[in-house]
Amino acid sequence: MSILLKNVILEGRQKDIFIEGERIKRIGENLGVRAGEEIDGYGQKAVLPGFVNGHSHSAMILFRGFSDDLPLKEWLEKKIFPLEAGLTEDDVYWGTKMALLEMIKSGTTAINEMYWYPEAQVEAVREMGIRAVIGLVMADFSPLGSREKVEKSYKGIRKNLPDFISLSVAPHAIYSLSRENLIWASDFARKNKLLLHIHLSETEKEVEDCLRERKMRPAEYLEEIGFLGENSILAHSIWLSDKEIDILRKRAASLVYNPSSNMKLASGVFPFERARSAGLNISLGTDGPASNNSLDMFEEMKFASLLQKINGLDPTLAKAEDIFKTATVNGDRAIRADAGRLVVGQLADLMLIDLDNVSLLPGHNLISDLVYSANGSCVSDLISNGKIIMRERRVEGEEEIKREAKKRADKKRNS
Amino acid sequence: MSILLKNVILEGRQKDIFIEGERIKRIGENLGVRAGEEIDGYGQKAVLPGFVNGHSHSAMILFRGFSDDLPLKEWLEKKIFPLEAGLTEDDVYWGTKMALLEMIKSGTTAINEMYWYPEAQVEAVREMGIRAVIGLVMADFSPLGSREKVEKSYKGIRKNLPDFISLSVAPHAIYSLSRENLIWASDFARKNKLLLHIHLSETEKEVEDCLRERKMRPAEYLEEIGFLGENSILAHSIWLSDKEIDILRKRAASLVYNPSSNMKLASGVFPFERARSAGLNISLGTDGPASNNSLDMFEEMKFASLLQKINGLDPTLAKAEDIFKTATVNGDRAIRADAGRLVVGQLADLMLIDLDNVSLLPGHNLISDLVYSANGSCVSDLISNGKIIMRERRVEGEEEIKREAKKRADKKRNS
Repeated sequence: MSILLKNVILEGRQKDIFIEGERIKRIGENLGVRAGEEIDGYGQKAVLPGFVNGHSHSAMILFRGFSDDLPLKEWLEKKIFPLEAGLTEDDVYWGTKMALLEMIKSGTTAINEMYWYPEAQVEAVREMGIRAVIGLVMADFSPLGSREKVEKSYKGIRKNLPDFISLSVAPHAIYSLSRENLIWASDFARKNKLLLHIHLSETEKEVEDCLRERKMRPAEYLEEIGFLGENSILAHSIWLSDKEIDILRKRAASLVYNPSSNMKLASGVFPFERARSAGLNISLGTDGPASNNSLDMFEEMKFASLLQKINGLDPTLAKAEDIFKTATVNGDRAIRADAGRLVVGQLADLMLIDLDNVSLLPGHNLISDLVYSANGSCVSDLISNGKIIMRERRVEGEEEIKREAKKRADKKRNS
Repeated sequence: MSILLKNVILEGRQKDIFIEGERIKRIGENLGVRAGEEIDGYGQKAVLPGFVNGHSHSAMILFRGFSDDLPLKEWLEKKIFPLEAGLTEDDVYWGTKMALLEMIKSGTTAINEMYWYPEAQVEAVREMGIRAVIGLVMADFSPLGSREKVEKSYKGIRKNLPDFISLSVAPHAIYSLSRENLIWASDFARKNKLLLHIHLSETEKEVEDCLRERKMRPAEYLEEIGFLGENSILAHSIWLSDKEIDILRKRAASLVYNPSSNMKLASGVFPFERARSAGLNISLGTDGPASNNSLDMFEEMKFASLLQKINGLDPTLAKAEDIFKTATVNGDRAIRADAGRLVVGQLADLMLIDLDNVSLLPGHNLISDLVYSANGSCVSDLISNGKIIMRERRVEGEEEIKREAKKRADKKRNS
């Protein structure tokens, strides 16, 4: 299996890129090699690393737009939880596929996922073909989130996993798991060399409750129980003290910034410059499509930058180049994918961008245009793990996915 | 000239819409009439009012991405003003055309414009065919912005103006015009029944300077000199006291909210709920594409809502329905276009939306999906003033516009 990208624009210059197996094998001018598949950019398509969606709950796309503009507690308890209660594996399978379709169409080549029914998600991802870390969710409030369930899923799924899918342990949050279960989750991840994906300090209430119950803040609590490590991916991480940032830096944990969701749910403002200047790895995520409600990482980059600028009343904050990294190479680092940079030897996770799209014109600065002006419709082709996933905006099976997912979402609404 | 929209979804039901001349003539099921042109939605396209971009500086698209992430003063004085100094009528003509192309492709049927060389803008708009109010800019710092220039442009342009283009007087701001020139602008507008379009209180500095020099706030100053009226359109209007909101309400002025630009330049947060609950007419604008940097009103709606929610730490603020109105019917009210609602007798300014676009699925609530999930690429067809401007995403002359505008922008960068 090989792919030749001909006449594509890489960092301002026209190049050919030869991909063999999962990796970039050669980059140069007029390579003149033969490949199983060819895409010609005719000097009008730029090649860029694909996006890593650092934190998502894909199947919640079935609930997108069902309810908005409500206080978080009311939204969750009156609207979302009743719908989720009736969710089946089949729903999760089709919901995940539709979310992946939307992400592929907007340049995402890898996702870090946290939702119920990991088996169904693995099947959906296997068929769609992009890189994914599927979380084995733990939560004391659901029988789906027990230790036994995690062990069972792990044993069942790991046997037959393609190389572009891996698993994480995903304890939901400090307030939804006992201390013992948090410790168990962390130990299980360490023992099996898995990532550890958790929601941390998304709301101020979480911090206040933790302070009242444990006389310490959430990240201090995780540190005390030995939870944190290089494998930790901490979604949201909004309400962090300087001391907590220092703890997370020492443990080399990765944070995920989810600006649209944080704004829409009025959760708070991620401390981007404090975390960045401390040297923490910051990736970017859309969160679930019921609380965003888009899965377009272009849009997410713009929110990521503009939220910091207005919050700090300083237009020099969260520069386009830094934000582009959160959406690409930092995300790859968080999920330990050997991708994110377009150099020989790296995994071929990349997108082609149609430079003739009017939102990318006149084209003074491509990274600025991608962050501040473009949207997902500028992506023409997408390759993940060395396979063509989208070609000229066509994704295999698109019509069936939309039809089947919509059918299931409509049924939920009317039930 | 007549158009029949067949099998389009209007407020959840499949309808036909018959347009004759500039207006909607009939709405019903299976109208069975003949028309010069037909568009069949096959039950898969929704029809919605087109967007009104309430405040823009279109030709600045030539500078998009040239410089970002700088303090406002440095950005303007070191980057933008030197480029603008060399701008010609020809540049403005092609820049405006490219900006209009981008706006048409993202659902905008009318714009309220403020930039140099109104004659060139009128030509660009005449050819592109959407509704526009072109501002005759006044500013004491430029020979292009004198009273004489405004009078001359007014006389020259008004003679041969199509019905979908009108003119406004557009004094730049209170700090860039003398008291006498502000009064002259207001009198000229009143005498000639023109709109009056000004930047107001975009930065806190403008308010502080005004307080120091005049012992009153900007809107109080405009009230004192008799500037304000129903014809006033006040862009930005961020730093408003309750007393100023009360003045603007009494004068029935319209405000324009420009969330992306306000965030990107770190100008401040528009007082949406205070102005709305006072009953003020609030429209929505992108501002210029050098400070946004997009012209997509879908994206602007999402920023408009989410900025209010995070700023007030309340997810119930700036609901999708209210924000959709700012982008449509409120904008029409501001520019006095008899459009914005899809009922018989109204001007036919509308867009068709491809309901099969994955970002609009599963489709629980169309307005929520348009505000929180969609982007401009969901628009399939666009009609302004009873004429088809875009059909299946094709706009006449698109390639030439992109080529010619890019050529001029490249020349600026390299000069």
